[in-house]
Amino acid sequence: MITHSEGPQAPRLKDVAAAAGVSVKTVSNVVTGAVPVSEKTRTRVQQAIDALGYRPNATARQLRTGRSGVIALAFPELPSPYFAELALEVIAAARRHGCTVLMDDTGGDPDAELRIASGLGNPMIDGVILSPLGLDQAGLLAREHRIPLVLLGEADLGPVADRVHIDNVSAARDVTRHLIDQGYRRIAAIGWQDPSPRATALQRLQGYSEALQAAGRPVDHELLPPVNAYFRPDGAAAMRRLLTLPERPDAVFCFNDLLALGAMRAAHEAGLSIPGDIALAGFDDVQEAEYAIPSLTTVAPDKRKIAELAVNCLLERAAGGHTGPSRLMTPGYRVVVRESSRLR
Amino acid sequence: MITHSEGPQAPRLKDVAAAAGVSVKTVSNVVTGAVPVSEKTRTRVQQAIDALGYRPNATARQLRTGRSGVIALAFPELPSPYFAELALEVIAAARRHGCTVLMDDTGGDPDAELRIASGLGNPMIDGVILSPLGLDQAGLLAREHRIPLVLLGEADLGPVADRVHIDNVSAARDVTRHLIDQGYRRIAAIGWQDPSPRATALQRLQGYSEALQAAGRPVDHELLPPVNAYFRPDGAAAMRRLLTLPERPDAVFCFNDLLALGAMRAAHEAGLSIPGDIALAGFDDVQEAEYAIPSLTTVAPDKRKIAELAVNCLLERAAGGHTGPSRLMTPGYRVVVRESSRLR
Repeated sequence: MITHSEGPQAPRLKDVAAAAGVSVKTVSNVVTGAVPVSEKTRTRVQQAIDALGYRPNATARQLRTGRSGVIALAFPELPSPYFAELALEVIAAARRHGCTVLMDDTGGDPDAELRIASGLGNPMIDGVILSPLGLDQAGLLAREHRIPLVLLGEADLGPVADRVHIDNVSAARDVTRHLIDQGYRRIAAIGWQDPSPRATALQRLQGYSEALQAAGRPVDHELLPPVNAYFRPDGAAAMRRLLTLPERPDAVFCFNDLLALGAMRAAHEAGLSIPGDIALAGFDDVQEAEYAIPSLTTVAPDKRKIAELAVNCLLERAAGGHTGPSRLMTPGYRVVVRESSRLR
Repeated sequence: MITHSEGPQAPRLKDVAAAAGVSVKTVSNVVTGAVPVSEKTRTRVQQAIDALGYRPNATARQLRTGRSGVIALAFPELPSPYFAELALEVIAAARRHGCTVLMDDTGGDPDAELRIASGLGNPMIDGVILSPLGLDQAGLLAREHRIPLVLLGEADLGPVADRVHIDNVSAARDVTRHLIDQGYRRIAAIGWQDPSPRATALQRLQGYSEALQAAGRPVDHELLPPVNAYFRPDGAAAMRRLLTLPERPDAVFCFNDLLALGAMRAAHEAGLSIPGDIALAGFDDVQEAEYAIPSLTTVAPDKRKIAELAVNCLLERAAGGHTGPSRLMTPGYRVVVRESSRLR
């Protein structure tokens, strides 16, 4: 048995119990979540845990509960700051339960997604939080090792696992309506994928189209340059195509912030002023959006809530606390208006 | 024993052997690296692996070799795009050896760094690549579970593990000299930490100071506003302090790109033009630096080489191919001059 080195001064369960004035068993119940504890006691124990810097010993816990406290988190696109920021929230939420998060980058490959959804065959992984890109329902149903799984994001793989997402159609509609309300008349969208759009592209295009139609505007396919991926170079290339049109757009809704930041750079290189000549809006509210010059209008999903719901659901499943049908959770979002679209 | 689900069509070792016209044993030797194989044969096998999309079965391999093919990679600051971009290169390098990478965010906490340096006590982890921030040599020597370990970055923890870094003093000197050569006269630096500077701050300040001294300029402590961390808000706050000086700087070298991008935003909000009123340079060459408005001059470490050296060293140690003293590897870097400092 491999033991953890926690350093000579590491506080133990009994130190927390003494500090909180409760039994070791009660502290254990709070840490493992195995037995419900009153809110008041839980708060007192948590304060003692925080004050002492106590961290549950993973090996000891696994012996006790059969669980290791290790969660795997897998995203398709590590260089996307949205995923990095969401991962930080997942790590923080997991830490509040004494869990460690290990991350994997699947590159959106269905085989890699299936392997991680099976916990990599690794008995030390209690459960998996996965944002799938390439995996389909049949693939997911084929997994042999059914460990607790929570899905993140737009892809609807059926009732095979709990899923946390925001309402993408509604969010895309709201940010497009903001551009309409600001007086922009020819609003393009960057993020459509041809010939195989992902769920993200489908849902954000739907919201965009609904907002235009509600305002009595046509959806002009010329204003939907397709992209291969959702990174800055894709956004820059799509913007350059839009700027070759006989009548160029005066606003662009990009399906994520990286596309918008690439498009912003391309518009700048073409000598256009933002938002005077052309407005831009993105989706994700990555930190870069706030610091860009000009700062970027965007949709801000509630990342903290997404992470909390995903971790809580997963740990509840892992502890056997919920064995019912899969659940769909939909936390909120905000449209954050910044310089890139605030003209009139 | 948990088996992997690789899908019904997944190619196997014998399929690769047939396609390459070699024995199963030879393919196995290429995949595991256990026995040397000629370059010609290795190339043929690798081509067959790539053509068929073969992925080594981790569980089968662990039974065969005692190794799982899982590497842990731990960084102190997940929201830093430099680490995300470096992680992608590590994942790509590991994949070329059929290995999976799991990442951990330590937050720079010495205890978390020590736990990951011990492989989390997880027998499924073959080795660890760690970029330490808070861990010191005594802490590292105290680890009980001595699995193969490669360190990344500036922190010198002594000859306890292989380490890959770039020459930070030289790189900081070069980028500061570029600012001097462009004719800037009052060059500040953002990234010093007071009272406990990290190795990064110490080495980059040293390079900055050496360049100034070589040009016969004084090092003015007024021009070194300290920061708490290396994120955009820290850079913006430090720039605002610099702009309150009776004589403000006309150039700023920031110790990473995020500091520079925050400083750029603060200068923009103060109505300054870049690089006309004030020049900026960063360190890391994250993709955002190329797309920023204006684009950011920076130091570009050879991320691909750093990742390759780290993975190769680690796997060599894990396979028992190198048992000698720890090695220090120093790949190269470039100074990439962009709009933020190209004035004269």
